[in-house]
Amino acid sequence: MPIKNDVVIGKDVKIWHPDLCNFYGCEIGDGTSIGSFCEIQNEVKIGERCKLQAFVFIPRGVIIGDDVFIGPHVCFTNDKYPSCSQGFNCLTTIIEDGVVIGANSTICPGITLGKNCRIGAGAVVTKNIEKNLLVAGNPARIIRRIDNE
Amino acid sequence: MPIKNDVVIGKDVKIWHPDLCNFYGCEIGDGTSIGSFCEIQNEVKIGERCKLQAFVFIPRGVIIGDDVFIGPHVCFTNDKYPSCSQGFNCLTTIIEDGVVIGANSTICPGITLGKNCRIGAGAVVTKNIEKNLLVAGNPARIIRRIDNE
Amino acid sequence: MPIKNDVVIGKDVKIWHPDLCNFYGCEIGDGTSIGSFCEIQNEVKIGERCKLQAFVFIPRGVIIGDDVFIGPHVCFTNDKYPSCSQGFNCLTTIIEDGVVIGANSTICPGITLGKNCRIGAGAVVTKNIEKNLLVAGNPARIIRRIDNE
Repeated sequence: MPIKNDVVIGKDVKIWHPDLCNFYGCEIGDGTSIGSFCEIQNEVKIGERCKLQAFVFIPRGVIIGDDVFIGPHVCFTNDKYPSCSQGFNCLTTIIEDGVVIGANSTICPGITLGKNCRIGAGAVVTKNIEKNLLVAGNPARIIRRIDNE
Repeated sequence: MPIKNDVVIGKDVKIWHPDLCNFYGCEIGDGTSIGSFCEIQNEVKIGERCKLQAFVFIPRGVIIGDDVFIGPHVCFTNDKYPSCSQGFNCLTTIIEDGVVIGANSTICPGITLGKNCRIGAGAVVTKNIEKNLLVAGNPARIIRRIDNE
Repeated sequence: MPIKNDVVIGKDVKIWHPDLCNFYGCEIGDGTSIGSFCEIQNEVKIGERCKLQAFVFIPRGVIIGDDVFIGPHVCFTNDKYPSCSQGFNCLTTIIEDGVVIGANSTICPGITLGKNCRIGAGAVVTKNIEKNLLVAGNPARIIRRIDNE
């Protein structure tokens, strides 16, 4: 079964195609919706009322707050120096409440995306982003503050 | 069923792995071929003789002409300011005939890719692209005209 | 069946979700592990002890050595000028032993990634990379040598 029994699923969670997902050992908050072709691994926590689009990859080490939008093809990571020969060093990545992550962006491991920040489509985020900032590009750079939007 | 009954499929359409796709409410023209792990949503129209590679995501609002090549992992979008808390504002994206979209590129919403233009692999296209142009990069910039190729 | 009978699979190969993969005509070396939602096409050869994360796309023409790490959403390609109307021209891409390819990067066709080089997350690699180099960005540029790491 692609959704293992150890997944903790809140109330009113909508998983559009359970047969086209791979979830295990994770926790999904109330009211969150998740598109097709997503993988969510062990120990991931996803808050309430989030929206995950299709093709999202969330490995161990990623903690996601409430009301977070995650666009299609967004890719999280958890090891700064992955390797076949050396050990796996899982870093913690924090996505705070209200963050919006644009389509096909890449989130490097061990960073924090601050409250209500926005990640432009296709961005590669390599360091912490403060709250209420819009960033974009590869590597992602600050475009402007969005306090009043 | 990952391919819903409301999908309108033309003649000689080749869908390589219907069980590994998620199509609903869309229209696919004659002679088009579609790889595995694709999602095509409501109201999308795809023209004739197109080739869609694996892992392509096409949400509502995207209209694709004839003879369009869409590389693997290409990601279309439809909302400029996606959000969990605010409404969904679906923009229309037009892909004209003969366009070639390179692998893993991201197409921002509400734009037009002009006839026969080419999008380099990994590009993030943020605005309209005129016909017969080659663009690449993040954000995508003009590399050269390709009228004579 | 998403894993065709013509796939040659070595000893101790771990394919986490055979039902969520699409492999045909390829060869996978001893001790390699492969995540969910991967597609590996005809004539691809993957060496020993490699680790392929989820959502990896490997088309015909790609040859991968031993001990290669391939991050999630990595996208290989095989035709420099893909098209619907013109013929398909499959180029050979070589990934040498010990290479590490970061998440969501794009590997253009016909190039060689030299021994132990590292491709940063989200990179778009457009030309040959010499051994022991770290590259990143779009297009990928040299960040530093990594001989001593």
